[in-house]
Amino acid sequence: MEQFVEILKDRRSIRKYKTDEIPEEKLNELLEAVQCTQSWHNNQCWELVLIQDQSVKEKIQKTVPSINPGFKAIVTAPIIIALCGKVGVSGKIGKDFGSKFGKDWFMYDLGLATQNLCNQAHATGLGTVVVGWFDHEKAGEVINLPEGYELVTLIPVGFPDHKGTSPERKSIEEFTHHNSF
Amino acid sequence: MEQFVEILKDRRSIRKYKTDEIPEEKLNELLEAVQCTQSWHNNQCWELVLIQDQSVKEKIQKTVPSINPGFKAIVTAPIIIALCGKVGVSGKIGKDFGSKFGKDWFMYDLGLATQNLCNQAHATGLGTVVVGWFDHEKAGEVINLPEGYELVTLIPVGFPDHKGTSPERKSIEEFTHHNSF
Repeated sequence: MEQFVEILKDRRSIRKYKTDEIPEEKLNELLEAVQCTQSWHNNQCWELVLIQDQSVKEKIQKTVPSINPGFKAIVTAPIIIALCGKVGVSGKIGKDFGSKFGKDWFMYDLGLATQNLCNQAHATGLGTVVVGWFDHEKAGEVINLPEGYELVTLIPVGFPDHKGTSPERKSIEEFTHHNSF
Repeated sequence: MEQFVEILKDRRSIRKYKTDEIPEEKLNELLEAVQCTQSWHNNQCWELVLIQDQSVKEKIQKTVPSINPGFKAIVTAPIIIALCGKVGVSGKIGKDFGSKFGKDWFMYDLGLATQNLCNQAHATGLGTVVVGWFDHEKAGEVINLPEGYELVTLIPVGFPDHKGTSPERKSIEEFTHHNSF
């Protein structure tokens, strides 16, 4: 196994997948990677809907704009993970929200869980892409999302059928400051 | 190097640190881990303020409630990373926000970057804890946060001086659904 940071750096967004199914063991490790994620006061607000039924994928795809680069992946990846979050638990101290970001803290916790999932996928040869641009209300209806929860992203998972591009990143100096912004 | 998923699972929140400084190379790898993080339309909204000046740490600590379990770590860890985000770039399609979460999408992207940072730290023997409960406005003033940016979390980093506890997690079955929530 190569250096940990090299695995992080090698991860690419994957939008074309082989038809191979995801072995049970690899899928379980993905779920373990989510399970062990830290969160605000250990609230674990994430809920994952694993979509493997092709007819459900097709209904979900209708909620994604066709110019979204992830459009095709929604029906071609063997599994789509609909990442949902319970609202109103993250960010709270007692009954009140502990910070100015209030109930939106759940977005941060879902980001933490997403990155564990995407990196774990990459480490075992699986590809992912995080799709955030779609009609969240309509997609939520497709998966029967209950009151009090939000569907935030759709994450296709499968064996990559292309290498993925390496988007340009800012230099470290551009986003790093010392003692003062 | 052990299995990737085991590294994710072994990561603990660390609140007591040795006084040892963080070697330059390890610090640089932490920043590389943030640098390579994916984000909405590759917007890379994160800005990191590395606080090593003890007087700045002390001013920051005054914005943290003393009953916050991370209170002491703010002045004892060799480096505190103040994780900030530019607001109004993440979540956008052209000039409009592409989803119902609007400008709050930056919280998700900051979560992605946080997890790369925390896992990379752990993989090289460093500990971290994500502190989100403090007075965001006052802490922002301490680091001279400019208009248009938000300070979201404070992340102490250093060599662990305790093992860290393993908080209870939900079972995978509790947060996983199939085709429908």
